[in-house]
Amino acid sequence: MTVQSPAFIPVAGVRLGSAAAGIRYRDRRDLVVVELAAGSTCAAVFTRNQFCAAPVIVARDHLTRCQPQFLLINSGNANAGTGDQGLRGAIESCRSLAVLRGCQVDQILPFSTGVIGERLPVERLALALPEALSSLNENGWLDAARAIMTTDTVPKLFSRRMEYAGGQFTVTGMAKGSGMIRPDMATMLAYVATDLAVDNTLLQQCLQRAVAPSFNSITVDGDTSTNDACVLFATGKSGCARVHEAEDELYRLLCEAVESVCMDLALAIVRDGEGATKLVSVAVENALSPAEAREVAYTIAHSPLVKTALFASDPNWGRILAAVGRSDVPDLQINRVELWLGDVCIVNGGGKSEGYTEAAGQAVMDAEEILIRVVLGRGTASATVYTCDLSSEYVRINAEYRS
Amino acid sequence: MTVQSPAFIPVAGVRLGSAAAGIRYRDRRDLVVVELAAGSTCAAVFTRNQFCAAPVIVARDHLTRCQPQFLLINSGNANAGTGDQGLRGAIESCRSLAVLRGCQVDQILPFSTGVIGERLPVERLALALPEALSSLNENGWLDAARAIMTTDTVPKLFSRRMEYAGGQFTVTGMAKGSGMIRPDMATMLAYVATDLAVDNTLLQQCLQRAVAPSFNSITVDGDTSTNDACVLFATGKSGCARVHEAEDELYRLLCEAVESVCMDLALAIVRDGEGATKLVSVAVENALSPAEAREVAYTIAHSPLVKTALFASDPNWGRILAAVGRSDVPDLQINRVELWLGDVCIVNGGGKSEGYTEAAGQAVMDAEEILIRVVLGRGTASATVYTCDLSSEYVRINAEYRS
Repeated sequence: MTVQSPAFIPVAGVRLGSAAAGIRYRDRRDLVVVELAAGSTCAAVFTRNQFCAAPVIVARDHLTRCQPQFLLINSGNANAGTGDQGLRGAIESCRSLAVLRGCQVDQILPFSTGVIGERLPVERLALALPEALSSLNENGWLDAARAIMTTDTVPKLFSRRMEYAGGQFTVTGMAKGSGMIRPDMATMLAYVATDLAVDNTLLQQCLQRAVAPSFNSITVDGDTSTNDACVLFATGKSGCARVHEAEDELYRLLCEAVESVCMDLALAIVRDGEGATKLVSVAVENALSPAEAREVAYTIAHSPLVKTALFASDPNWGRILAAVGRSDVPDLQINRVELWLGDVCIVNGGGKSEGYTEAAGQAVMDAEEILIRVVLGRGTASATVYTCDLSSEYVRINAEYRS
Repeated sequence: MTVQSPAFIPVAGVRLGSAAAGIRYRDRRDLVVVELAAGSTCAAVFTRNQFCAAPVIVARDHLTRCQPQFLLINSGNANAGTGDQGLRGAIESCRSLAVLRGCQVDQILPFSTGVIGERLPVERLALALPEALSSLNENGWLDAARAIMTTDTVPKLFSRRMEYAGGQFTVTGMAKGSGMIRPDMATMLAYVATDLAVDNTLLQQCLQRAVAPSFNSITVDGDTSTNDACVLFATGKSGCARVHEAEDELYRLLCEAVESVCMDLALAIVRDGEGATKLVSVAVENALSPAEAREVAYTIAHSPLVKTALFASDPNWGRILAAVGRSDVPDLQINRVELWLGDVCIVNGGGKSEGYTEAAGQAVMDAEEILIRVVLGRGTASATVYTCDLSSEYVRINAEYRS
């Protein structure tokens, strides 16, 4: 599927530079430096994969020590499964940048994405740093969004401009991700910036609220990456008042804008899912709890049989029903379950709905964006997750690519 | 992968007949009648999928009423997701056979496999019954094993002949299954017969012990079927003493033979997995509990990224490590984890093993049968599950076939 990247709006206080370090790819940028204005605050969420990558361990540690001044991101090598050597490599990369900019090592957050299990070529990365620094620019977002791509086919970059009685502010974010996507607290890599001034605790809350319905509700292949990270930073350069109360109207607006940008980025990742030809929303309603609704939604979204039927545009609802039936929902009353494709009711009362015709189901499946809706008839909770189909192209990409 | 079906041994007291009812396929048999000698005992396990098919509901009910005399099996239509009409269809099919043979309706167990959500053509099925009955024969196993196939490429049929101080007995079993395979208490359809005489309770225990390491330890695509069923029947025609004590040596021999036949059938299903080119054993050792070992093994076995790497014969161990890291194992000490491909140690101490070479990993991956071994370093429990790779052929089959 094609993803449109609308024009971005720069964020005052954020400069981005990039360079070609030759880490894995030839003839393209693979190194990004993001500079945050002094006094910026920063929030982050990281993968829950227990085999998390070296840069995740180092970035988590640095965040506990001081406010970050730089993000240092490379693609082509994940620096994961690399043991102590990997930790030393992540810290060394930060040190090279710290020396060039005269800051502390722990003011730098490292991020990596790409092949797992290979040594990060720290020397090549260090050699390209001067070029990245010399290109630091408030308009560097698109080059940066391109430089962090791996199997992505398009850069992912979205902005919101918010009006406020006291002025205006901006939220702009970029992300990469296409395979190994079942984020757990964050997606592969996402960076969202605002020029508002926001206290750390509120910023962290804002980020956590935003990732739940967006990055934490998407799946391409059910595989949680070792390198997932999502960072939100606030530079305070908008001229608006500082946000330090959760009740502030300005905070509400910020949360709205951040969630909206995260949602755009998350859906762009699913649309650009490896081999994807469809964007599929799976909505589960009337569950006993949100966790139960998510369990059913993810069971459908991960079923290879459902996903191949979606690829074939085949309204093969038996496979969806079988996925609902095997999900972990105790004492499901199957005669209360309804299954809808878009606004077409397919199943109710334990069997095929009376008015259902194959032609009506086919019309929904032929579209590029498809809604699967399951009503469980048990309670009032609901959840929506987003996924894509499973195509022969997915197999080709992942049989050929060393990720 | 090709599956060899060794010559089968008929079981005294079991006759099988088959016919072409034209339920879905043209020019092939799709209907099987299995006749059990009077006095036979019968054990069965069924799918835990809550959207279980009509024949599963009817067979479960009939089993509580009396000893079955006939099994009635069709392929091409699963009679699942068909509501009350489906239940009536399953009972009607049994009634047609009962009328022809002068037995009770509840002495017949119905089984169906094939497309979900379409009405079972009861009339066509009934019309073909006389032909199936006229072909009843102790040597009908291979024709029957062929008639129950759907996307299977080969029939699956195995036998054991056991010697005993008091004589000899036989265990012969057939199964079908290729996709929608993640059995939960049983596989798609499997029928195992012995000519021993065995009490019902012992026979049920024997079956449950046999399915745990076999049918309940395989997965092709993680999708549990609505129609899974496994039946074990004992005709008592061997001339050996009746088995009615769990301590009997004869019972131990029976359990050994049944488990061995079930294991052969289960592995044959994985080898014949849709699009499969590899048979992969995933062994997890030193876990805190068997459940934990199975959780890790299934997370690896279901990972599309691991499965596409297997298809490509790519020793991409980072993907295996990422799957271990995202499985639900609290407080995993990653520096205690070892990862082996066959007898090649790839990961220990949290990173790549010192002596590991890509060539050594490649040699293991090039084989048709691959062992992935993960040592967790937490306890003494272990589990092994069996799976296959994910190929572009899997996508083609499931995008084209309406299952």
